[in-house]
Amino acid sequence: MSLLLDNQFKELPPDKSIDTKLFLETVAHLPTFFDCLGSKVFSPIKSDISGNITKIRGIYLKDPTKYVTLQSILEAEREAHAAEWPKVGATLALMWLKRGLRFIQIMLQSLADGEKDENNPNLIKVNVTKAYEQALKKYHGWMVQKLFSAALNAAPYRSNFLKSLSKGEEVKEDVCLANVRQFLVNYTITVDAIYEMYTDMNAELDYTV
Amino acid sequence: MSLLLDNQFKELPPDKSIDTKLFLETVAHLPTFFDCLGSKVFSPIKSDISGNITKIRGIYLKDPTKYVTLQSILEAEREAHAAEWPKVGATLALMWLKRGLRFIQIMLQSLADGEKDENNPNLIKVNVTKAYEQALKKYHGWMVQKLFSAALNAAPYRSNFLKSLSKGEEVKEDVCLANVRQFLVNYTITVDAIYEMYTDMNAELDYTV
Ligand SMILES: CCCCCCCCCCCCC/C=C/[C@@H](O)[C@H](CO[C@@H]1O[C@H](CO)[C@H](O)[C@H](OS(=O)(=O)O)[C@H]1O)NC(=O)CCCCCCCCCCC
Ligand SMILES: CCCCCCCCCCCCC/C=C/[C@@H](O)[C@H](CO[C@@H]1O[C@H](CO)[C@H](O)[C@H](OS(=O)(=O)O)[C@H]1O)NC(=O)CCCCCCCCCCC
Repeated sequence: MSLLLDNQFKELPPDKSIDTKLFLETVAHLPTFFDCLGSKVFSPIKSDISGNITKIRGIYLKDPTKYVTLQSILEAEREAHAAEWPKVGATLALMWLKRGLRFIQIMLQSLADGEKDENNPNLIKVNVTKAYEQALKKYHGWMVQKLFSAALNAAPYRSNFLKSLSKGEEVKEDVCLANVRQFLVNYTITVDAIYEMYTDMNAELDYTV
Repeated sequence: MSLLLDNQFKELPPDKSIDTKLFLETVAHLPTFFDCLGSKVFSPIKSDISGNITKIRGIYLKDPTKYVTLQSILEAEREAHAAEWPKVGATLALMWLKRGLRFIQIMLQSLADGEKDENNPNLIKVNVTKAYEQALKKYHGWMVQKLFSAALNAAPYRSNFLKSLSKGEEVKEDVCLANVRQFLVNYTITVDAIYEMYTDMNAELDYTV
């Protein structure tokens, strides 16, 4: 039906802990989001995010009982790798993954809110740029920022992007945007909870690549 | 000692056939060439080339006796996939791989020949651009060409690049360039032979990505 609604995030429990297994299952579908952008130019980004997920899953599978929540992984790694932590293991992979997730969140929210370039209403550059500036730009050196600017020209038309989110079906635009809004509810709560965990555990880094 | 001399290409027999096993063993070291460029920006290129090698190796290993030379693989695939060939299997992977190999060849040859921007003698942009224009540009659409231009700014200084080709050892520049020339002898013969095979078998395509 829809790429997003087929893979909705679950509600979080009151303590906002995130079940690792459920999280990995749901997030595994998100790299295909970058296919919806329609150009092979975005495949290195898709690989980077898939790599983060593979890294976290690999660590989780070593001891699923110990690593039942995302927080339990961070705590175990802080203990085991005191010297390098948080630039290590699943802590590092999730640090970057959450930025990609935030990018997707802000871009979709901006589309759902109807933010547009009135002169080019069928372009999504404003939405992509907003998401990039808020989620990623500060972690990128000038070189990657420049590549982003160049890659931005490969962003698809709004109508084509919304269509591919609906897996190519001819869904009315307002239906598609309603789906996006529905998806964003638990998704945003989950991404916020991960950010909060990084703040609370003092696990955030701001080096640039 | 030197990234290149440690992994020299073998002389070809008089019929210029290329032994698949030897070729795969030698070429496997070349993706690290892109690490010598010193920026993570080049890692998608490294992955693309590594992917080509993995693809060819996977097919070779299915029947090492049948696929003893590169040409025997192309012939078998032409037979087995008449409709899609040459845009298929190891034939496609080697078609792209040879372009990456040619890029490396032209860039190194240009350095060995002392081609320089006299105003910026420690930059390698002229050598990289020459290699790109001759080996790859025509197979890239405007978008990837634009990304190339942006990525070019991440190219290292000549001195640092030569140093990393020597695996970080303080080798005199003329010694390093002599090594490059030595490496280029059989390497160029091998790359030429692959190009010739694609021409002879009418296996070359010129679609852009
Ligand atoms: C011939 C032509 C030549 C052209 C060559 C051009 C090559 C261009 C390469 C561009 C880079 C692709 C993006 C990847 C960037 C990555 O470098 C960063 C950091 O990546 C992290 O690094 C860590 C170590 O510091 C660990 O290795 C992490 O790995 S670990 O799992 O091992 O711990 C890893 O994710 N990730 C990022 O910045 C995340 C990116 C998120 C998505 C961004 C969405 C942007 C959408 C844009 C839409 C317009
Ligand atoms: C937030 C920031 C966002 C930024 C995002 C930017 C992303 C930039 C992405 C850049 C693309 C990386 C280069 C890869 C290009 C590839 O698209 C092409 C064709 O690749 C081929 O395609 C085939 C199908 O048509 C098969 O899949 C082949 O695969 S198969 O094995 O399955 O058959 C595959 O190799 N290879 C190429 O063009 C080869 C490249 C060779 C090396 C070039 C050297 C250039 C050196 C430059 C030095 C300055």
